Amino acid sequence: MRDQYYEQLDSIVDDLVALTNGVRRAVSGATEALLNADAQLAEKVIADAKEIDEAAELIEERALLILATQQPVATDLRQLIATLRMVADLDRMGNLSVHIAKVARMRIPESAVPEPLRPTIVQMAAVADQMIDAASRIVANRDVVAAEHLEDEDDEMDQLRRSLFRILLSDDWGHGVEPAIDLALLGRYYERIGDHAVSMARRVVYLVTGELK
Amino acid sequence: MRDQYYEQLDSIVDDLVALTNGVRRAVSGATEALLNADAQLAEKVIADAKEIDEAAELIEERALLILATQQPVATDLRQLIATLRMVADLDRMGNLSVHIAKVARMRIPESAVPEPLRPTIVQMAAVADQMIDAASRIVANRDVVAAEHLEDEDDEMDQLRRSLFRILLSDDWGHGVEPAIDLALLGRYYERIGDHAVSMARRVVYLVTGELK
Repeated sequence: MRDQYYEQLDSIVDDLVALTNGVRRAVSGATEALLNADAQLAEKVIADAKEIDEAAELIEERALLILATQQPVATDLRQLIATLRMVADLDRMGNLSVHIAKVARMRIPESAVPEPLRPTIVQMAAVADQMIDAASRIVANRDVVAAEHLEDEDDEMDQLRRSLFRILLSDDWGHGVEPAIDLALLGRYYERIGDHAVSMARRVVYLVTGELK
Repeated sequence: MRDQYYEQLDSIVDDLVALTNGVRRAVSGATEALLNADAQLAEKVIADAKEIDEAAELIEERALLILATQQPVATDLRQLIATLRMVADLDRMGNLSVHIAKVARMRIPESAVPEPLRPTIVQMAAVADQMIDAASRIVANRDVVAAEHLEDEDDEMDQLRRSLFRILLSDDWGHGVEPAIDLALLGRYYERIGDHAVSMARRVVYLVTGELK
């Protein structure tokens, strides 16, 4: 009976890691669709979001079921509560990948990202990707040290957003209002994806150390 | 002992309602600062956000304490889980009010909202305000019918965002890139505030009916 209980708890962690990897693929698919004006890929990211939703719901239901039937205490309770929050983060990151794919789709056959901003968006997407990858490993291994590094990547994201806005608002910006709005929103989406990765890492730190940053 | 337990549960609902009302004041303060280019009010909203954070943390800690020490089951368990999620929504809405206040502050002594967009922003802020007010009453009274109405207001918010973008992207838009970006982001902030109000209402519906929309 207790063995089965611990198996259930472990399998929830596995599923959380799998969901994190799924979200990572969604974000990188959305980025590729955006940079290459790839309509088919944009549609795929938008369609696949349903699977992320369903996987998130399933983990949530199972965590709630364990809470309701097993009355876990101490660390196990904290783990399940942390799981519910991380699922909410992942659900939101999945939605943000759909927002990115929809901006991509709206501008096809053009890319929504004009030439002068490509390096910045490529870099923001790369940082977001690293952050999700780190979050996945932090959840899998309860790696508190890696969680601290994640805060540095969050700073890098912040600097990239500022540099994005500098380009959009410079006198050289010759692409008009519409791409500027697209890019401001895209910058925000990548930044929020990073924020949610940080929030996941903080939940793991709290789980391990009992301290909420 | 049991009486004290139910008092604790009830007082958490009261605190959640109080926090919702605090968030409502923060959003309407941020809107006023934005429309009137009121530096003092913008600073106040930004400074007061700390109190929202602290109140949210306090509710969260108390909910976790009850979960850990009283091992609640069934409806009580669901209520505490819903509370944790609603606190996360409210925390985020508080952050969004700070984002609005910071856009206001950045453009002072001008208002960040150029004349042609004032009616749309006024309306978005009014809908957001109604939605938070509704969420507060829904939480206080477990009012499932009011929760359904909230979805209509969400549709109205969606239409307002679209109309905002139409104005930003029309040939008549003569205010350049910077205000366009401000307004696109502001539109998104109000929309997200509304989304979080809807999410709170859905948690209450789930609590009452057991069905998650």
